[in-house]
Amino acid sequence: MTTEQDAITGAEARVRADDRAHVFHSWSAQALVDPLPVEGGEGSEFWDYEGNRYLDFGSQLVNLNLGHQHPDLIAAIERQARSLATIQPSFANDVRGELARLITDVAGERFSSVFFTNGGADANENAVRMARLVTGKRKVLAMYRSYHGNTSTAISLTGDPRRWPNEPADGSVVHFFGPYLYRSAFHAETEEEETRRALEHLEQTIVLEGASTIGAIVIETIVGTNGVLVPPPGYLAGVRALCDKHGIVYIADEVMVGFGRTGDWFAYQAHGVEPDLVTFAKGVNSGYVPLGGVVISKEIAAAFDERAFPGGLTYSGHPLACAPGVATFEVFRRDGILERVKDLGERIVRPTLEGWLESHPCVGEVRGTGLFWAVELVRDRETREPLVPFNASGAAAAPMGVFAKACKDGGLWPFVHFNRTHIAPPLVITEEELVRGLAIVDQALTEIDALIG
Amino acid sequence: MTTEQDAITGAEARVRADDRAHVFHSWSAQALVDPLPVEGGEGSEFWDYEGNRYLDFGSQLVNLNLGHQHPDLIAAIERQARSLATIQPSFANDVRGELARLITDVAGERFSSVFFTNGGADANENAVRMARLVTGKRKVLAMYRSYHGNTSTAISLTGDPRRWPNEPADGSVVHFFGPYLYRSAFHAETEEEETRRALEHLEQTIVLEGASTIGAIVIETIVGTNGVLVPPPGYLAGVRALCDKHGIVYIADEVMVGFGRTGDWFAYQAHGVEPDLVTFAKGVNSGYVPLGGVVISKEIAAAFDERAFPGGLTYSGHPLACAPGVATFEVFRRDGILERVKDLGERIVRPTLEGWLESHPCVGEVRGTGLFWAVELVRDRETREPLVPFNASGAAAAPMGVFAKACKDGGLWPFVHFNRTHIAPPLVITEEELVRGLAIVDQALTEIDALIG
Repeated sequence: MTTEQDAITGAEARVRADDRAHVFHSWSAQALVDPLPVEGGEGSEFWDYEGNRYLDFGSQLVNLNLGHQHPDLIAAIERQARSLATIQPSFANDVRGELARLITDVAGERFSSVFFTNGGADANENAVRMARLVTGKRKVLAMYRSYHGNTSTAISLTGDPRRWPNEPADGSVVHFFGPYLYRSAFHAETEEEETRRALEHLEQTIVLEGASTIGAIVIETIVGTNGVLVPPPGYLAGVRALCDKHGIVYIADEVMVGFGRTGDWFAYQAHGVEPDLVTFAKGVNSGYVPLGGVVISKEIAAAFDERAFPGGLTYSGHPLACAPGVATFEVFRRDGILERVKDLGERIVRPTLEGWLESHPCVGEVRGTGLFWAVELVRDRETREPLVPFNASGAAAAPMGVFAKACKDGGLWPFVHFNRTHIAPPLVITEEELVRGLAIVDQALTEIDALIG
Repeated sequence: MTTEQDAITGAEARVRADDRAHVFHSWSAQALVDPLPVEGGEGSEFWDYEGNRYLDFGSQLVNLNLGHQHPDLIAAIERQARSLATIQPSFANDVRGELARLITDVAGERFSSVFFTNGGADANENAVRMARLVTGKRKVLAMYRSYHGNTSTAISLTGDPRRWPNEPADGSVVHFFGPYLYRSAFHAETEEEETRRALEHLEQTIVLEGASTIGAIVIETIVGTNGVLVPPPGYLAGVRALCDKHGIVYIADEVMVGFGRTGDWFAYQAHGVEPDLVTFAKGVNSGYVPLGGVVISKEIAAAFDERAFPGGLTYSGHPLACAPGVATFEVFRRDGILERVKDLGERIVRPTLEGWLESHPCVGEVRGTGLFWAVELVRDRETREPLVPFNASGAAAAPMGVFAKACKDGGLWPFVHFNRTHIAPPLVITEEELVRGLAIVDQALTEIDALIG
C-alpha cells in the first residue's frame, strides 16, 4: 500500500468508526445498518473513499435537483456566510424577502406570501395549522400511500407504514384512497373511470366524515416515495371543486415535486389547478441548507392580518438557507432547467422505460413525468403480483436487494422502495450520464428477469 | 443626500417592500408588524441600514452563543460548502460523525449517540417518540411555563399561551407545576421548601395520572423564554429519582441552555444529574445553519439496535450544519468560553443585577446563572404584581414597550417576554460591551421606576 492509500483507508476507517459509535440513523435498526462513507460528489455523481463513483439516480432523497456541489449554489452560500449567516425571523432580511417574492411570483395568481420552515415536515404542520384556524374545522383528509414528514401531525398525515409505530399521533386525520390505475382501488379500467370513481370515493368520504368537520385535504400532487403516482387528467381539478364546494382548504404537498422535478415550477401547474397552500422543501435550494415552507394564498394570508398566526420557529427564513434558493432561480432561468427536464423526460426517459415493458418480463408498469419516474417490478405480468410484498423486509425483500446490488456494482445508486425503483436523477444530469444510467438499470432488470424465471 | 445614501435608502426600501409583501412572519398578526431591516452583524452587535447599531442582549433568539459572524464558524461553513454541502442520512459522513462524537464526549457517561434534527421542535418530537417506544407508555408530563417548539407534539408539550390556539394537538400530554419560588405554586418560603413541595406535587401528579401510563417527563433544565427559572438545589435530582422509581424516561430540553449558556456544556451538569435524553439546537452551532438533535443514552440507543427507529428526516446530520458545530467545540476550548461565561456571570452580571434590587423599585427579582438571567419587573415590590399582566398584548403591554424602546434608543436590543427582560448576550461579549449594555438596561429601568411612580 502506498502512503496515500494508507491515509485514505485511515480517513474512511475513522468516518466509519465515528458513525457506528455515535450517529443514530433515521428509520433504521442501528445495529443492522452499515452506512457507506461518502467522500465527495459533483454534478450527478458521488464517490466513496475507495474511489467507487455512483450515478445518483435518486438525487439523494430527491432533493438534489441541481446536483452535487453546483458552483452557483456553493458561491451563494459562501457569499451569504460572509455577509450575514443568520438573523431572527422578526427582522426583515434581503435574501429572505427576495426568495419569498421569487417563489410567490412563480406559484400563481392565487398566492401572496411564504412562511419559511426548516423542511417539509414542519411545512405540512404549519399548513395544517393555518387551514384549521381559517376554517375553524379540525379534521384533515390525507391519502393512503403518501408521505408527509416525521413530526406528529406530519406522520399522522402519512399514509404509508412509517405511520404505524407512531399511532395514534394526531387523531384528527382520516385517510382515503387516491387514484392508482395499475392497482385500482375502484376496479377501474381506464383513466377516465379512475378519475371519476376516485372523486366519488373522496366525496363519499367527505360526506360520511362530515364536511362541517373537515378543514383540509392534503395531497402530494404526484405521490412521491409511495410510487410516483401521477394523477389522471381531471382528478386534481375535481379535488379543487370538492374543496370549494365544501369549504375545505386544499393543501398541495410539493416537497418532492416542487422546483422543477416535473418540468414545471410546481407540479400542480400541469393540472390546471391552484391549491390554497403549497408546501415545499428539498428542491427549493437542493437541500444544501435545510429549508422548507408554505406558499400561502392571498385569502388565507389575509385571515392572519389582524389575528396572530400561532406558529413559528427560530430559523424561519434563515438567510443562509434562502441565499442558495435565490441562486436556484437564477440557475433555472439561465440554464433553461425546466425545458431540459421536459425534453430529457419525454425524449429519453419515457421511450427507454416504455421499451422495458417489452424487453423485461419483470417490469409491470412504468409511469412518470419530467425526471420523476417509477418502474414497478412484478413476479408475474398477468397477476401483477409485486416482486416483493408490500412493506417487505429481510428475506422477503431480497429480490429488490439483488436489483440494488446490480445497480451499485454497475456504478449507479438507485432509489428503491418496496417493489419499485424510481428514476429521479439531478435535473442537471447530462444526456450521456442519463443514457448510461438507464443502461445500468436495464442490465440490473435483466438479473431480475432471470430471478423470476 | 449623497449617492451612497440614496443607494442605502433604496436597499432598505427594497428589503422592507419584499418583506411586507411576501414574508409571512412567525407568531404575528401580519398587518401589525413592521420588521426592522437588518443589514449586518459582528460579534455582539448588529446594525440596520441607517447605521443604528444594537448590542444584541438576546443573542437573537438565544441561539447566537458565539455572536454574529464568528470568523471560525464562517470559515467552517465555507470549507464544508466547498467540500460537500449535503449528503443523505443513510450514508456515513466525516463531520456528522465527528460532531456526534464531540457531543457525546461532553454529555456524560450515560450517553452514546446523537440523532440529528433540524431544530429544537423536531428534537423534542423524536425524543418523545423514543421514550414512548422504549417504555411502551404514551403519556408525557411537561411543565406549565415552558416552551418546546411549534410542531404538533412539541407545541402540546409547551406550557405557555402559544399552545392555546393549537389545542388539542397531542392529547397525551399533561402539564404540572415546576419550582418558581418568587411566585410559588406551593406557598413555599424557602428553596428547600420549594424543592420538596414541587417534587411532592410531581409525584402526586404521577400517581394520579398513573405511573403505568407515563412514558416521559420533559423539562427545560432551566426554563428559558418563560422566565429563566433555575431549579432550586435538589429538584432535578428528585426528578431523576422519580423517573427511576416509576420507569419514566427523563428528557432534558437543553435547546436554549445547552452549549455554554450557563457556563457548562449542558446545564444539567451543574445539578449533578444525567437525563436519559437531551434535546439541543441553537447553541450547537449558534444557529448559523439549522441544526438540532437528541443525545441518547446507551440504554435507549440499544433498544433500537435490532428494532427500527420509526423516525427520520432528509436533513438529519446535515454536513453543512455539522461543520460549524465542530468548529464551535474548537472555539469553546481554545478561547475558554465556558470559563469566561462563569466569570462574567458571577463577577459582573450577578452583582450588577442584584444592585438593581436596591436601586430600582420596579425590579422585583433577578435570577440566573452564567450569561442567562431574568429581571422581573413589577408594579409593586410588596405584592409582586407584575408590571404587565400575564400574556398581555396591546395597551396592557405598553409599559414593557416603554422599556424596550428605551433600550433600543440606547443602542441595545433587549429580549422581552411578559413582564421580564432577559440578559442573554453572546458568550463572546467583551467585558466593555457587557458593562455598557447593563448600563443601558439600568437607564431603561429608571424610566419604568418613574412610570410606576
